[in-house]
Amino acid sequence: MKYLSKIETWITKPSLSEDGWSEIKPFLLLRLTTDSGIEGWGEAFTLPFREKGVSEIIHSLIDAITSIENLTPKTFNLKAKEISDKHRGIDFSAATSAIEMSLWDIFSKEEKKPLSFLLSTRPKEKVSVYANTWSEKSPNNVALGQRAVSLMNDGYQGIKIYPLQNRSLIQAKECVAHIRNLIGLEIPLMLDLASPDDESLALGLAPLIKEYKPYWYEEPIDGQKIRSLASIRTQTGLKIVTGEKQFEIPHFKEVLAASAADILNPDIAGVGGIIDMTEITNLSAKQGVTISPHCWNSMSVAAAAMIHFCVSNSNTEMAEIYPEYIPHALKFCDLSFKIKDGYAKPKDRPGLGVVINVPSLMNMSSDYKDRKLN
Amino acid sequence: MKYLSKIETWITKPSLSEDGWSEIKPFLLLRLTTDSGIEGWGEAFTLPFREKGVSEIIHSLIDAITSIENLTPKTFNLKAKEISDKHRGIDFSAATSAIEMSLWDIFSKEEKKPLSFLLSTRPKEKVSVYANTWSEKSPNNVALGQRAVSLMNDGYQGIKIYPLQNRSLIQAKECVAHIRNLIGLEIPLMLDLASPDDESLALGLAPLIKEYKPYWYEEPIDGQKIRSLASIRTQTGLKIVTGEKQFEIPHFKEVLAASAADILNPDIAGVGGIIDMTEITNLSAKQGVTISPHCWNSMSVAAAAMIHFCVSNSNTEMAEIYPEYIPHALKFCDLSFKIKDGYAKPKDRPGLGVVINVPSLMNMSSDYKDRKLN
Repeated sequence: MKYLSKIETWITKPSLSEDGWSEIKPFLLLRLTTDSGIEGWGEAFTLPFREKGVSEIIHSLIDAITSIENLTPKTFNLKAKEISDKHRGIDFSAATSAIEMSLWDIFSKEEKKPLSFLLSTRPKEKVSVYANTWSEKSPNNVALGQRAVSLMNDGYQGIKIYPLQNRSLIQAKECVAHIRNLIGLEIPLMLDLASPDDESLALGLAPLIKEYKPYWYEEPIDGQKIRSLASIRTQTGLKIVTGEKQFEIPHFKEVLAASAADILNPDIAGVGGIIDMTEITNLSAKQGVTISPHCWNSMSVAAAAMIHFCVSNSNTEMAEIYPEYIPHALKFCDLSFKIKDGYAKPKDRPGLGVVINVPSLMNMSSDYKDRKLN
Repeated sequence: MKYLSKIETWITKPSLSEDGWSEIKPFLLLRLTTDSGIEGWGEAFTLPFREKGVSEIIHSLIDAITSIENLTPKTFNLKAKEISDKHRGIDFSAATSAIEMSLWDIFSKEEKKPLSFLLSTRPKEKVSVYANTWSEKSPNNVALGQRAVSLMNDGYQGIKIYPLQNRSLIQAKECVAHIRNLIGLEIPLMLDLASPDDESLALGLAPLIKEYKPYWYEEPIDGQKIRSLASIRTQTGLKIVTGEKQFEIPHFKEVLAASAADILNPDIAGVGGIIDMTEITNLSAKQGVTISPHCWNSMSVAAAAMIHFCVSNSNTEMAEIYPEYIPHALKFCDLSFKIKDGYAKPKDRPGLGVVINVPSLMNMSSDYKDRKLN
């Protein structure tokens, strides 16, 4: 790459999923184009009322890097850290994640290799995926059970539920019992508590649901409360997952040092970038902590990056999929991976491998900004 | 207040300070106007390449709160926490800080009281202030010494320097010795290491400078590295200051629990808001940890909020002033406080008490956005 010649960002409109299961949030996609016409796609983790802010940070940061000679994902990563001077946040990290992702797409396209072959000399063929059943509609046990069985029948290797959503501890136990009864004991059942403020919820629920063999216990408390996480881990004996709302390496080092988690789930579009994700994964491996990436993003660009990342690192398991987001993604892209029998396998294409139908994306977006560079 | 009728934001142009000492960064100011014509001013902490992003977050968040009945600083604080759902960052916190500050300004103007009288039944009359000598020009010892003496003669109650800026450990020691020799042993001399990556710098410098009686040892390492901060504190025996780059209450609770600091210096325009700042201050008091607020902001709106906050809370000391930013602020406002003999004293005016000359502010700005609400 000599230089970047164009930047474009899209923020998609929210919409109800085709199956009516959940509201699909807006996504923030980035395309960088080089002077030689190579296109790199990126995606930033999005949050309500913050999408345009992150988009602005992306556009501003691009001005900071167009003058860098030998711009690579690594030189960008270093430049972003120099710019932030340790002033951190998920908005900034989502912006840098998107840019770095797009640079990885460009660089692996230049090398004519799938991204996973730049990240690893011998990537795995596939990675197991699990299904998230989140819906803001607070489905009751019957609806949730039907959903879980249907997803299991689709081949997903694990099912994640939110037992405390709209439920008391006793109701949460009944929910977990109901779902476990329907799906059987074989398949991993993940419980996500969605970071309640009150530690006593996680401590109170744990003994009630232990017999239903949860695969993990996710965000039993605010991920920032490292001491509390460690204490819940010790007291419950369950496998603790944390990290989806956190960013950059120092936080995860503190979590590891406190033995506060069994599994970390940073989001590849929010943690800061693939380089930080790799370092967090390697540090975790030294302590027997695995990585199961969070992916509350479109199933197009960010999910592609996640799958490439997962197959390129031996310390990863169970990538997250929002099943109802896939038909939504298919409206504007050809996915870069196939999901079959509960495994995602990257297609043999250069870069991220995602092929975006730009007119469709444009139609689905409420915000588009483009700018010529250099 | 019935409702907000207008939002305006300004991002000021960077400029060299009048005395040539330092480059003044862009500032982000906010004005909210109510249906009855009361104006509330706020300011968000700014960082390179992120000003417009924070401005966008402010504009978006306003849409989330215009429908709140009985909008108060407290209901806003709760709404912002609900919206963020523990997805934190200094960009988001800077945005909420600005909005909450502006709401405090409105509410105290409605009560026809200075802000400090809403925050406390019996505020202190004044708070001591210290001078920051930061300059990106890396002043040599002679220039820094002249500056320090001049600021001391102006009455500042403490002088902060950056001994490691462009200096080896030995040179840093010489710098500290030189400055201490010039200003004498009486006046507090604060050493700011500006969060180096390498812990050995803080540990190596400490024994070299101990004889010069530093008042505190600020950011001896990344504020996120809580274990390292605690270890440096124990090993050096110096008073550790941290917190300027951090935000929201949970982080500060972890720092306090680890006994990692003697003084916390969150920034009132970056920490999340005055309500969070108050809670952090009260939690700190229980552990004998004091608050000396950071204020790398314009000396207009954010500094006004800081001074009101400091006089309203008994656990505060030594508010931060960038002396060369004051003439810059005077170009577009009448300050809300007087600095005399090293103390800042709020003027007896309702609200924050800062009077902005909007045409001047407009002239000094590179970005202005306004929008009618409701």
